[in-house]
Amino acid sequence: MNNLESLLCERHARIVADVGFNAWIHIAELEDLLALAGGVDPALPLYGKTFAVKDNIDVAGMSTTAACPSFAYTPDDSSPVVQALLDAGAICMGKTHMDQFATGLVGTRSPHGSCRNAFCDDMISGGSSSGSAVAVALGHVDFALGTDTAGSGRVPATFQRLIGVKPTRGLLSTRGVVPACASLDCVSIFTPDTGLAETILDLVAHPDPGDPWSRSAPMTPSHAGPWRIGVADPDTLFFDGDISARDAYAGAIAQWKTLGHEMVTIDIRPFLEAAQLLYGGPWVAERYAAVGEFLEKGWDDLDPTVCKIILGGKNHGAVETFRALEKLQGIRAEVAPLWDGMDMLMLPTVPTCYSLEAVRADPIGLNSNLGTYTNFMNLLDLAAIAVPHGSFASGVPCGVTLMAPAFGDAFLLRAARVFHEDGKAEARGMVRLAVLGAHLRGLPLHHQLEDANARFVREVRTAPRYRFYALPNSTPPKPGIVRVSEGGGSIWVETYDLTPEAFGRFVAKIPHPLGIGTLELEDGEWVKGFICEPAGIEGATDITDLGGWRAFLAEFLRK
Amino acid sequence: MNNLESLLCERHARIVADVGFNAWIHIAELEDLLALAGGVDPALPLYGKTFAVKDNIDVAGMSTTAACPSFAYTPDDSSPVVQALLDAGAICMGKTHMDQFATGLVGTRSPHGSCRNAFCDDMISGGSSSGSAVAVALGHVDFALGTDTAGSGRVPATFQRLIGVKPTRGLLSTRGVVPACASLDCVSIFTPDTGLAETILDLVAHPDPGDPWSRSAPMTPSHAGPWRIGVADPDTLFFDGDISARDAYAGAIAQWKTLGHEMVTIDIRPFLEAAQLLYGGPWVAERYAAVGEFLEKGWDDLDPTVCKIILGGKNHGAVETFRALEKLQGIRAEVAPLWDGMDMLMLPTVPTCYSLEAVRADPIGLNSNLGTYTNFMNLLDLAAIAVPHGSFASGVPCGVTLMAPAFGDAFLLRAARVFHEDGKAEARGMVRLAVLGAHLRGLPLHHQLEDANARFVREVRTAPRYRFYALPNSTPPKPGIVRVSEGGGSIWVETYDLTPEAFGRFVAKIPHPLGIGTLELEDGEWVKGFICEPAGIEGATDITDLGGWRAFLAEFLRK
Repeated sequence: MNNLESLLCERHARIVADVGFNAWIHIAELEDLLALAGGVDPALPLYGKTFAVKDNIDVAGMSTTAACPSFAYTPDDSSPVVQALLDAGAICMGKTHMDQFATGLVGTRSPHGSCRNAFCDDMISGGSSSGSAVAVALGHVDFALGTDTAGSGRVPATFQRLIGVKPTRGLLSTRGVVPACASLDCVSIFTPDTGLAETILDLVAHPDPGDPWSRSAPMTPSHAGPWRIGVADPDTLFFDGDISARDAYAGAIAQWKTLGHEMVTIDIRPFLEAAQLLYGGPWVAERYAAVGEFLEKGWDDLDPTVCKIILGGKNHGAVETFRALEKLQGIRAEVAPLWDGMDMLMLPTVPTCYSLEAVRADPIGLNSNLGTYTNFMNLLDLAAIAVPHGSFASGVPCGVTLMAPAFGDAFLLRAARVFHEDGKAEARGMVRLAVLGAHLRGLPLHHQLEDANARFVREVRTAPRYRFYALPNSTPPKPGIVRVSEGGGSIWVETYDLTPEAFGRFVAKIPHPLGIGTLELEDGEWVKGFICEPAGIEGATDITDLGGWRAFLAEFLRK
Repeated sequence: MNNLESLLCERHARIVADVGFNAWIHIAELEDLLALAGGVDPALPLYGKTFAVKDNIDVAGMSTTAACPSFAYTPDDSSPVVQALLDAGAICMGKTHMDQFATGLVGTRSPHGSCRNAFCDDMISGGSSSGSAVAVALGHVDFALGTDTAGSGRVPATFQRLIGVKPTRGLLSTRGVVPACASLDCVSIFTPDTGLAETILDLVAHPDPGDPWSRSAPMTPSHAGPWRIGVADPDTLFFDGDISARDAYAGAIAQWKTLGHEMVTIDIRPFLEAAQLLYGGPWVAERYAAVGEFLEKGWDDLDPTVCKIILGGKNHGAVETFRALEKLQGIRAEVAPLWDGMDMLMLPTVPTCYSLEAVRADPIGLNSNLGTYTNFMNLLDLAAIAVPHGSFASGVPCGVTLMAPAFGDAFLLRAARVFHEDGKAEARGMVRLAVLGAHLRGLPLHHQLEDANARFVREVRTAPRYRFYALPNSTPPKPGIVRVSEGGGSIWVETYDLTPEAFGRFVAKIPHPLGIGTLELEDGEWVKGFICEPAGIEGATDITDLGGWRAFLAEFLRK
């Protein structure tokens, strides 16, 4: 049995063991998975990765039910997004739990019962892509696909402490997806971290001539920062009384500030007004257009809340619809100039998290609350990424959503990475440090980091704002780095996370003329790092053009 | 009395004399016009130009009625498009006849009666911007504004032998315009020729933060040609039995071919299918959303046909609307790849022209026929320019519409100019000739053109594909021009129209090594012009960098 086969056995066993979480509607047979494993080329980019698919997205040969068994059909073809993942070597473990017909943000609207939150038994998992999020959080799969019309990809991502990518409308094909609101539906991605999300988004974002809603455009270019981040005054926001949620949002703002970025307080009322249109206006009729006639037949596995909502869409009028479209257009025009003043907007992903019991008591009202900061996204044609940040008092993970106009996806992922990596370090109380000389791996002082139990994060370059020098009369040879306003270069560094204590001991050992300050990395992250006093540079050799200390050593040793 | 005052007197008298055409709803008082005249700065770009405004567009201090007196209001502010024209020095002569609430393509749906066609008494003028077109055709004004949702700017332009610019949706502000279908409405421009249309479009195309439908984007870049022009097989088109219309369209195709462009036959069924949605689908409800509640009050000056159509919009449903929006999206996706194979699409503007009597007998059916090739334009987000070409058997002018995806307006105007200028010359049986040496105005051989009664057209440069030489041993000095595949320059020429006979005599006089061939101008027009045998260039001085013969002479005389 090779590594992939062992992995599949282990994952399959875990899924079966966790069946009580109710995250899956259909689990692939282990023997079918093992039969597949042999045929996957190890050179493929997703070789060794497994994924889950929300049960409203077609996977060839698996039943698509949208959590309604009487709606079931078995497609011959996988949806283009699933097919791209299979073609990249990933293995699909099955189909996941969801709010029926993707109408809900709670994970409870299903004849299969509620999907359990991965962290807290009595709290909701969030929906509609509940099972996809829970499957990733429980380690059943490496990543999962969901859909996101009103927040279905972001709400459960947050409640399971995951990255939730709600791509620009039309960036991913929605062919082979049971429509909720066809004009607003997006396929979404759940991953534990931003790196895998970037890889997957690159693999699946392709124009699809077979999908009338498919769109393509160049990704919005991004700059290295500091970024202008639109935020709302936490005291003006709706958290349904949850102080822990308000504090988590304030903490997210504080974290960005620490990272050196600029906060821009904006009036988010037009966004919230647009959100009201999604269920308060005629768009429910688009849900009826998709599955209303099926629901009219009164199957006994229909979720009563879903049924009530979608059938209510039948009675809206065309005049009302055009008025709502015009109102939305007015809000779009009102919001458009706001983007001139900010690179992205950050809002809470949800006001709070509710218990299963509370949702049972008020299934529509609380669901509606959950969509406060997500419902407007597709109506206003924004790209969005939900990023974990902190927790609610209940212990359920909390988070924020970064958003930008359509085709800002790549920039948002970059920003999410900066925020999430920093947050992960922060959450552990760690300090992130960049080293760039004799502390690099394999060099004479690296043992100091090992002694400090420093955790390696990544190899990365600084922003192109530094001159780099080999200091004179130093053993072993040491570098100095100086930030400049013009003519700077990017220098290779390695970043590490250390506990504050270990960091303190480390800093104490650093000799003159070096010290520890803050360095800007090429993707906008700011980390602690070596700096050098001006006097230290006197008589030093400028080695900026070499781009890093390893290149200098190679040259130095050759001489 | 200065020139502008005399002009206003003359124009005003002409409008009053032509009152029987029923082109105007409100004519400005002559004394008010004269009072205005003194305050206009002669340096302004539209100084000395007068214009008419369709009566659904606000002009400060003039009543806006949309051809419904009981709807009248008097705005304090002019619409931004009108204001831009006033600011540029143009003078508004009044408000013009229209199909009530811009619902019609006939010019007969008005309590004021029908607007007369400028060319044929018993034929319709076309609508809904009937009066604007007729006022320009009769020389009442230099240009006029209309609106165009379903064809209202193009149909009357064609029937009055005018250029009708239907700009990209959102390119011109629709603030201060009584909405027809707000999401599809455009302000349109009527001019006798393309040059003035270009000037006006430049002056009025500005993003308007106060108009939710305002959009801006860079104009699609165009190339010098030859262009790939999408056309339909004339035998597959609907002309309602009008053979003269079919022949006119075939003639337009032939004219483009003569100009050296490439015809690409395409399947236009998806365009026609989209056209059906405008009145056959829920968009009528958008008209109801705009003025339906006003119409419900049953005022006695309502046009019964307009009333019937708009009130019918009340009963459409939201579910149907979302299905229609999805169907439209499907057609957009089907049409999109067609643009990869063509630079523009040319179709007849209308299938035919109907008599007033025929429209009286079937006011909805024939109106619907008239929209066959115009109704889809805004739904599919195209820019369009109606260009005169030929006539129907009835004597009413006929034409074609050039169309391209949104923001192709500048390219279309350029193409329209090439086609229209050529057509105007063709229509007179004239031959267009470019001269570039001693025949230029003021030079020794220019008298040959005067003797030939040649009509000066313009001063223009060739495409950047020529080398230009001063020929040796020639009195007076003469130039030679040679087309090259690389390294060519643009050379100043003057173009003239001559009768074939005069042209023949002119060509007969041209000595070796010169001759007459075909030259490409910088905007893609191809005209007859001087060419030179290769041997003639031997020993000649390359003067391409001087850019023209006048510059050479200046240099030559200095030496």
